[in-house]
Amino acid sequence: MVNKNFYAVIMAGGVGTRLWPFSRTNYPKQFHDILGTGKSLLQQTIARFEDVCPTENIYIVSNELYRDQIKEQLPQLRDEQILLEPIKRNTAPCIAYACYKIVEQNPEATMVVAPADQVILQEDDFARIVRDTMEAASKEDVLVSLGINPSRPDTGYGYIKYDKNDPNLLKKVEEFKEKPPLELAQQYLDSGEYVWNAGIFVWNVQSIIQAFTEHMPELHQIFHEARTKLNGSEEQETVGQVYTNCMSESIDIGVMEKAQNVHVVLCDFDWSDLGTWKSLYENSEKDAQGNVISGQIINHDTQNCIIKMPNDKLVVVQGMDNFIVAEFDNVLLICRKDEEQRVKSFVKEAKEVNEKYV
Amino acid sequence: MVNKNFYAVIMAGGVGTRLWPFSRTNYPKQFHDILGTGKSLLQQTIARFEDVCPTENIYIVSNELYRDQIKEQLPQLRDEQILLEPIKRNTAPCIAYACYKIVEQNPEATMVVAPADQVILQEDDFARIVRDTMEAASKEDVLVSLGINPSRPDTGYGYIKYDKNDPNLLKKVEEFKEKPPLELAQQYLDSGEYVWNAGIFVWNVQSIIQAFTEHMPELHQIFHEARTKLNGSEEQETVGQVYTNCMSESIDIGVMEKAQNVHVVLCDFDWSDLGTWKSLYENSEKDAQGNVISGQIINHDTQNCIIKMPNDKLVVVQGMDNFIVAEFDNVLLICRKDEEQRVKSFVKEAKEVNEKYV
Repeated sequence: MVNKNFYAVIMAGGVGTRLWPFSRTNYPKQFHDILGTGKSLLQQTIARFEDVCPTENIYIVSNELYRDQIKEQLPQLRDEQILLEPIKRNTAPCIAYACYKIVEQNPEATMVVAPADQVILQEDDFARIVRDTMEAASKEDVLVSLGINPSRPDTGYGYIKYDKNDPNLLKKVEEFKEKPPLELAQQYLDSGEYVWNAGIFVWNVQSIIQAFTEHMPELHQIFHEARTKLNGSEEQETVGQVYTNCMSESIDIGVMEKAQNVHVVLCDFDWSDLGTWKSLYENSEKDAQGNVISGQIINHDTQNCIIKMPNDKLVVVQGMDNFIVAEFDNVLLICRKDEEQRVKSFVKEAKEVNEKYV
Repeated sequence: MVNKNFYAVIMAGGVGTRLWPFSRTNYPKQFHDILGTGKSLLQQTIARFEDVCPTENIYIVSNELYRDQIKEQLPQLRDEQILLEPIKRNTAPCIAYACYKIVEQNPEATMVVAPADQVILQEDDFARIVRDTMEAASKEDVLVSLGINPSRPDTGYGYIKYDKNDPNLLKKVEEFKEKPPLELAQQYLDSGEYVWNAGIFVWNVQSIIQAFTEHMPELHQIFHEARTKLNGSEEQETVGQVYTNCMSESIDIGVMEKAQNVHVVLCDFDWSDLGTWKSLYENSEKDAQGNVISGQIINHDTQNCIIKMPNDKLVVVQGMDNFIVAEFDNVLLICRKDEEQRVKSFVKEAKEVNEKYV
């Protein structure tokens, strides 16, 4: 059923500080069962790609810090499928590592690259679209982004402008746009020519290596020289040296915004990057008073709140409207939901008190 | 300096549920350093009476549950000074136990009886007034309450109406009044004929035993028969039997409201029973935004709150006005300060979830 040349690369090295204190350096959000489904975001993501490619072709790229958490949550993966970065260098080196490793195993590979911490509701639609996109990308020299039909003028996502007149599945990208202010986001939405950039990419391994060669020649050089040692006993040592020489760069800036063969596939499924408390609130089930609640909570006169507390604590909440109340480990946050963009600055303040709080 | 016939009886068996979750069955408020002074309320109370009577004449009456906490906090007391009740029977049996035990040791004793969980700011004034009152009570057959000059129409305290024309230190009591509604409290305040009932009593041991004999004859009978076994090796067993036979009753209803020889001494020192979050807020030092804070708190845009959190947790609070945020052990309470009278009902709800939360 699934194509032996199809691979998935899951990026699971981020921390997600906008969901602090829930998402933490030692326990980033992708390892949490953040929606109370019984599975962590990482486990859900892997399950989603098991309908797309053989389990043995699923690779995780993450930080060495999270080795044990990944092995515990994904016992079905062999050690060779878990790629551990010694330091953070953003998405371009992360993707290059996986590409130059996979091309040595299978030069005919076509891959989907996706973050470990997104939520997608219609899993069947997702698998079908990804398979169709991979099928197409396996035969063409293209770099493809998945684009989500925007349902609101969200200022938290990047946007992709595409050619509306392109009749193909893979539509020509005209421009990538950074997170816009609200007015501009509304214009994007109204024009019908923009989709959200999901941060999910599809390409065949030859095309992406060609793109690295052209647009990030230094990065290409580093990984090209190391490529024969990225599988086998020398892998970890090699990666340690390689990463010391890598610049930190995103795949968007390093490749996608420069390449001419960039395309987008329009997707209709419900998607969220669950990056913030607000997006977590919006993607969670609410009670009759509009509260999203997890933990042992007794609440009175409380509306529109997101309350996420450890299960072993009893929490009585009275008279709150539109608040985030969230505790994880040694930190409790109580903050107006409208002010959630300040969480990043709270993390900085917390770090000044003690590293153990971030 | 201090009179060898002067005794203090400290009642330390209550739980103080209106200060939940801080005050708990296993850790009532009197054992907490609730004002951050470095001493628990019980330790502060004992220190206050060490200026009134010899340390060896200070007796604690509490529940068996708290034996270890008391011994740990008050290493200067001998075991014989710690009276342990097997069950709660309100203040009348508690006071009777101490009286019938002390009269066997010293029939000339004069005693002050006080709760362990009050706050008194002018300790010197307090000690002087108590000594003067005890001096007077040692020579007369009187039952004396300390009455606090009311500073506001508080609806949380009982009131005492006294004879304004009585020129003596011990002024004749006309009537005891239950906690009044606000309008009535205001009338009491305006009339100048009422003081707050501090729940602190002074009498010589013969007078109180005479009062028990007259007004609570059954209680008198029970303790009178047991009196010779209330000191020495049979004490605990005897007390166990005695308490099984005692009705639960307060000293106010059982004795003070019935007796004719009841007097009040007017007191001017700042006093609080710290019974509620509101009174704790009012009696604590505030920051420039009117917040009472203990714990490791980073706060933004927050006013008029009382935030009491464990020190080992970092708490970030943003955008709160007039809230109680309090955690102890396995319970967190977040509640509008104006709604603090609902804490008692929250305790009931918590108990229904699990006894361990109360």
